[in-house]
Amino acid sequence: MNAEILSIGTEILLGSIINTNAAYLSRELAACGIGCYYQSVVGDNAGRLSDSLELALSRADMVITTGGLGPTYDDLTKETVAACFGLDMELHQPSLDRMIGYFSRFGRTFTKNNEKQAYMPRGATVFDNDRGTAPGLAVEKGGKTVILLPGPPSEMTAMFELQVKPYLEARTSRALRSRTIHIFGMGESAVEDVLHDSMLRHTNPTIAPYAKTGEVELRVTASAPDQDAAEALIEPVVREIVALFPDKVYGVDAGDMQTALIRALTAAGRTIAVAESCTGGMIAARLTEVPGASAAFLCGVSSYSNQSKIDFLGVQPATLEACGAVSRETALEMARGIRLRSGADIGLATTGIAGPDGGTEEKPIGLVYAAISTAGEDKALELRLSRGYGGERQLIRNLACLHAMNLALQDEILKKEG
Amino acid sequence: MNAEILSIGTEILLGSIINTNAAYLSRELAACGIGCYYQSVVGDNAGRLSDSLELALSRADMVITTGGLGPTYDDLTKETVAACFGLDMELHQPSLDRMIGYFSRFGRTFTKNNEKQAYMPRGATVFDNDRGTAPGLAVEKGGKTVILLPGPPSEMTAMFELQVKPYLEARTSRALRSRTIHIFGMGESAVEDVLHDSMLRHTNPTIAPYAKTGEVELRVTASAPDQDAAEALIEPVVREIVALFPDKVYGVDAGDMQTALIRALTAAGRTIAVAESCTGGMIAARLTEVPGASAAFLCGVSSYSNQSKIDFLGVQPATLEACGAVSRETALEMARGIRLRSGADIGLATTGIAGPDGGTEEKPIGLVYAAISTAGEDKALELRLSRGYGGERQLIRNLACLHAMNLALQDEILKKEG
Repeated sequence: MNAEILSIGTEILLGSIINTNAAYLSRELAACGIGCYYQSVVGDNAGRLSDSLELALSRADMVITTGGLGPTYDDLTKETVAACFGLDMELHQPSLDRMIGYFSRFGRTFTKNNEKQAYMPRGATVFDNDRGTAPGLAVEKGGKTVILLPGPPSEMTAMFELQVKPYLEARTSRALRSRTIHIFGMGESAVEDVLHDSMLRHTNPTIAPYAKTGEVELRVTASAPDQDAAEALIEPVVREIVALFPDKVYGVDAGDMQTALIRALTAAGRTIAVAESCTGGMIAARLTEVPGASAAFLCGVSSYSNQSKIDFLGVQPATLEACGAVSRETALEMARGIRLRSGADIGLATTGIAGPDGGTEEKPIGLVYAAISTAGEDKALELRLSRGYGGERQLIRNLACLHAMNLALQDEILKKEG
Repeated sequence: MNAEILSIGTEILLGSIINTNAAYLSRELAACGIGCYYQSVVGDNAGRLSDSLELALSRADMVITTGGLGPTYDDLTKETVAACFGLDMELHQPSLDRMIGYFSRFGRTFTKNNEKQAYMPRGATVFDNDRGTAPGLAVEKGGKTVILLPGPPSEMTAMFELQVKPYLEARTSRALRSRTIHIFGMGESAVEDVLHDSMLRHTNPTIAPYAKTGEVELRVTASAPDQDAAEALIEPVVREIVALFPDKVYGVDAGDMQTALIRALTAAGRTIAVAESCTGGMIAARLTEVPGASAAFLCGVSSYSNQSKIDFLGVQPATLEACGAVSRETALEMARGIRLRSGADIGLATTGIAGPDGGTEEKPIGLVYAAISTAGEDKALELRLSRGYGGERQLIRNLACLHAMNLALQDEILKKEG
């Protein structure tokens, strides 16, 4: 089976929004083993939308659309699909009731034009919208399927996860199960080198690498008659992969590194505090992104000026004088300083040169020290994070955050194993 | 004139990368007054790429492609365009020389397959790549133009800005000039209500609103025979718009709020320090994103725990006891505390409930206090930032950052005017 993604909305054609929906759906389709050869974007225009839909249906078994399900006159997706499939529109009472309930819950007035959102092509499968007003739907005819989803990403992804996936599974009589292995500190091609060729050729489960800044995720997906059987196919492969990367895997289904770290610390009943120079608050910002972070994160200091390194962290002026702010010694004193002054179990620190200015021959742009201090030991890493082209300040800061958080995460993993 | 965007790369169809290039190009085309009715994505497959290119050329005067200009066998864009236009490929010596220089500068070995990147369809206009190895190019035939740009966004955007824009201007004998007005604290429809209808109907300059979280940007774009004439068309309109939003405009061509704030502080020779609770380091992280931030930003404290508010900021335990961590009183003590302890001219603070837990009837999720302390005055804002649906922790934190930075920015603007 193959599918196409058709994103609908003039605001995408004007560049006012980035089409993250298409990327999300592409990933999900790949995980379901459904091929996708084209993505398209078209505006809120009946003729062009109809042309695009016909073209997509001529090339693919299934078309997934996003957008154009709202209450206004330029929301045309349902009507266009109905016309294309020769179906009448009819009121879907449960959707209308649900929508009226939604409006009253948030104290908003239900206006007549919202009723439009409860009209569906006859025979459609309706997907409830838990996060907004426009329901989604699926229409099948002559071996072709069109799935219509709302445009706002939070509504679309929740609907896909909770309702479209089971719909696809029911149609194919297959259950799907995915797990994601998180690897830090290796590039995508290095990861692929370590994986056995046979693994990359696996078809059930499939193993799909996905490169992020400084990280590689491996998504393992199995398809089987039921969830338990899918699970049984996945588990040995996940264990085998994790064993291939003994120091590099920081979690399975961990979401991201900050979530993995907050979870590990919370589970261990330990606390952390951070002192940041070149990352200037990014580590603290990321850790506090995680709901419930307050159980493990005590505080952070973004000590950008030298004076603040002395006043807030107790770094010795002599150290700054002799070694400079960007040095192993300063990083260690920062990590130790924030640990002692905050009373946290772990102190984490970064100092480095993110550019574009401030680099020298001896201390070039991209030189970063990440340090960790615990009751047992203090240690620092020297990193060279520049890739040699311009405009990489954010990349260097990003990688510095990941390296520092990984120091703490590896420490937690070791503690757990030891 | 109208154009289409054709993004090439199997990694986009797999959802491994988000297609930010299409959004960037769409915005730029809109600013150039070039219509765009379709965006498409196709993989690294000769047949489908050729079909997509033919289709796009049948619908539009110009097609802009991104991706598929690399050295490997599955980089097919140039060859496909050459075949479609019936052109031979030939070596472009300046590109080869440039590429060899690039490799030697970064100490990398130039391998034979890289030569592929220096072959061009005969008669192509070549665009140098300042940030990578693959040059871009434009090919014209029979009134149709195809512009081929590299896939990595940093290479693509630099090439578009510096070389493609002048190329388009030369072809149309028109110079384009854009200015962007930054508005904070109003929604997009409220901004459109304030603008005169006549302004939104303007065709030269055009005025295009672009909504971001908490902000609206208005991009004013004029087209004229030369830059000076374009400038002369824009300036009175920009002045008129700025005057319509006396307290809401925080800058023109300011990039973003953190850049505007660091620039304003640096120009005034003033310094800032931040104390963050619910934003947990985000303001510090954003301010230090700006190159040269160290001229104005001294330090930040992410005081997540109550104890750290006392230890690092000097908040009174009695205040925390009586009013709670999320209160106007605590916000004011945090702002004052960080100002006095850091020696900065301005102290900025946030405290609030970002959710998903921790909300009460009296202090619901979304309640945030932002405070500013200067030598002259301390003041705090009470904000209600929840929009009433789930999963909005990041939205609330985001808006809290913007409100706090805007407090400092308005203070700077007032100082300058006063």
